[in-house]
Amino acid sequence: MQRTLIKDLTNQIGQEVTLLGRVLNIRKLGSIVFVVLQDFSGTVQTVWETEIKVGIGEAIKITGLVKADTRAKSGVEISGTKLEIVSANIEDLPYDFAGKDINLQLSTLLDLRTTSLRHPKIQAIFKLYDLLLEGYEKTMRQEGFTEIKTPKILEAASEGGANFFKINYFDKDAYLAQSPQLYKQIMVGVFERVFEIGTVFRAEPHFTTRHVNEYTGLDAEMGFIDSFQDVMKMMNKAISGVFTHIKKNGQAYLDEYGVELSEVPEIIPQIKLAEIKKIIKEKYCYEIPASTDIDPEGERLASRWAKEEHDSDFLFITNYFWKDKPFYTMPSDDSQNETEGFDLIYKGVEIATGSQRIHDYKMLTENMKAKGVKPDGLEFYLDTFKFAMPPHGGWGLGSERIIQLILGLGSIKEAVLFPRDVKRLKP
Amino acid sequence: MQRTLIKDLTNQIGQEVTLLGRVLNIRKLGSIVFVVLQDFSGTVQTVWETEIKVGIGEAIKITGLVKADTRAKSGVEISGTKLEIVSANIEDLPYDFAGKDINLQLSTLLDLRTTSLRHPKIQAIFKLYDLLLEGYEKTMRQEGFTEIKTPKILEAASEGGANFFKINYFDKDAYLAQSPQLYKQIMVGVFERVFEIGTVFRAEPHFTTRHVNEYTGLDAEMGFIDSFQDVMKMMNKAISGVFTHIKKNGQAYLDEYGVELSEVPEIIPQIKLAEIKKIIKEKYCYEIPASTDIDPEGERLASRWAKEEHDSDFLFITNYFWKDKPFYTMPSDDSQNETEGFDLIYKGVEIATGSQRIHDYKMLTENMKAKGVKPDGLEFYLDTFKFAMPPHGGWGLGSERIIQLILGLGSIKEAVLFPRDVKRLKP
Repeated sequence: MQRTLIKDLTNQIGQEVTLLGRVLNIRKLGSIVFVVLQDFSGTVQTVWETEIKVGIGEAIKITGLVKADTRAKSGVEISGTKLEIVSANIEDLPYDFAGKDINLQLSTLLDLRTTSLRHPKIQAIFKLYDLLLEGYEKTMRQEGFTEIKTPKILEAASEGGANFFKINYFDKDAYLAQSPQLYKQIMVGVFERVFEIGTVFRAEPHFTTRHVNEYTGLDAEMGFIDSFQDVMKMMNKAISGVFTHIKKNGQAYLDEYGVELSEVPEIIPQIKLAEIKKIIKEKYCYEIPASTDIDPEGERLASRWAKEEHDSDFLFITNYFWKDKPFYTMPSDDSQNETEGFDLIYKGVEIATGSQRIHDYKMLTENMKAKGVKPDGLEFYLDTFKFAMPPHGGWGLGSERIIQLILGLGSIKEAVLFPRDVKRLKP
Repeated sequence: MQRTLIKDLTNQIGQEVTLLGRVLNIRKLGSIVFVVLQDFSGTVQTVWETEIKVGIGEAIKITGLVKADTRAKSGVEISGTKLEIVSANIEDLPYDFAGKDINLQLSTLLDLRTTSLRHPKIQAIFKLYDLLLEGYEKTMRQEGFTEIKTPKILEAASEGGANFFKINYFDKDAYLAQSPQLYKQIMVGVFERVFEIGTVFRAEPHFTTRHVNEYTGLDAEMGFIDSFQDVMKMMNKAISGVFTHIKKNGQAYLDEYGVELSEVPEIIPQIKLAEIKKIIKEKYCYEIPASTDIDPEGERLASRWAKEEHDSDFLFITNYFWKDKPFYTMPSDDSQNETEGFDLIYKGVEIATGSQRIHDYKMLTENMKAKGVKPDGLEFYLDTFKFAMPPHGGWGLGSERIIQLILGLGSIKEAVLFPRDVKRLKP
């Protein structure tokens, strides 16, 4: 008999159907057995009054009668008549698959990743992640952005950064891109508005709850802006689009974690870095270390201020200092020490960095000189600015951090399918 | 005045508007000057009866009156009143930007990539590429696939292949993924149906028109299949979805190349490898070298056969030989020497490889042994098969090759924004 998908069962009440899927749970009540079955389209309870032999986590094929059941979330339940094991466990699963929570230490959770991902609570994370990607793709296209794919292997460790992985590229050295920055700027000269969803490699020896060495960046870049306010406005739209999409389609996954999705303000509040530093010191008696523009505790307190003053989980911190920003960041009109650079803080953590970029060739080369950045390996990038680059700006968003913060996960590694850190290269 | 987008001009007939964009072309007719302007939303002709000073390729802001013009593709033209240079060229563009064709040697075209991409004919390639991505994302989601992102840095050069780039990962060696194969299979155990759009790295020292060392793969994997026929059926849907999306939204870009998009058959014809080899020998008098399963000339002739016999630009070649396929490929029921592996040939070139995979732990480890593949570094993958993996299969599609073949581009490098080959690491 043809397979029926679980999502289509409500149209089949009174019919006999064949289902395929994985056993999420088994409960016994006297002589009756309840088997919860999941396929890619949904979950349904099946009821057995005959004896069945099946284990939790196994892949099965069943035949049964569809009955309306108003108590069930799906609106139906299956009265099972025939059960066949499609694929069995040859060992017991190494964790309690049927529990509501998975209750494993992070390192164990990750060691067991290939199967712990099957737990509904972990599945929910990556279903939300799928919605995040879809929401971003849709919103950016609606706003006229063209999707691009830029190279991840680079000849030079450009952008002035030190956090590059080196690779053996045939008979020479090469480097893994730590952002699509230079290429997406070049592409503004082509399509005016571009976005990229791509892998980002960072050779930072961090051991924190918010860093991994490989992640997926949601980048965007747009031309003909008046100022970095246009970039923040667009980013506000992008975040709203993504959150609306998640709210509309992901409630069940949010419910798994008992979280309510933040409202995205129509206009996300913004404050200059110098100002928020002053507020943090005066209001919260915390002194941000002089060695940094703003540290994680500073971001947390800035976010607290945004919540208290503006009832917002989001905050743009703007006008980052010239000395801390890369050479392509547009200096501020008002102050020589500041830039048109911003970060987006969500629930106390930076999730995005953006800015207006320098589009004038002379200003760009002078800014590089002032910063001591050598043009070697950047010639192709710099030459592009001889040819009518419009004023432009953009952002890089960390996709996994958004999901981590939405769900309140203890570590970003929980929001990456197979995370990479200094010590972890498998599974 | 607020910026108007070119796509919205038809709603503004009789109004004065401000436009921003790049000058694609300038023509003079007596005292009248025609300036073709492009923004991210479209292209429009502007007409000037006053003297203006502007160069081709420059970024400008204009004010003008919107007039209906039935001869124009856009339905309107602009009678310009004010023109302002937003960003000028400080050197002449190094190629003829206004010509209908760009007429550069491939190596020059790529050396000048950061600006040659701006030529409308080159833009068309990457607008189609954007539609390809969107069409794939949409179709896969419609079919219930979850989008995933799997790691690109691996501990071991697994999959038995030799074509891995080695990277320095902190104090140890690591490798760049040459496909998401093992991870997407693992994810079938989680979501049953998954797809990934991701970077693929291949350290093959090829110098051909159809290879690059970094490309974007369109991968998919699905569970609970009856046979590899289900995988080919789904792939047929995916290709149809993509081509329908391109046809609906990309006609203008196809017209730039004067090509007609292939019809995707409702059922793409298929033939076994052993059979098509015989046909190629008997009908086209070509002997495929014994060192290969099928060579490029063989694929070309197979495609010719599909066109002649089935009037199809697409052909599945199935039952690739066991000796040529990776360890995870399901052996064939009918023949010990064959597998449930297939390739999809489009216009004479292989664009995808797929198969049913082995889902039984014992069969998998025995097949590895028979092939001499060591389990070292693959333990996490193999262990997954102890836990009820359903029968499954999938494919990997080369995104850039599809666009190359649709447009008939001489080299795949023309379909990659910034291609990487043995010699080329920039721009």
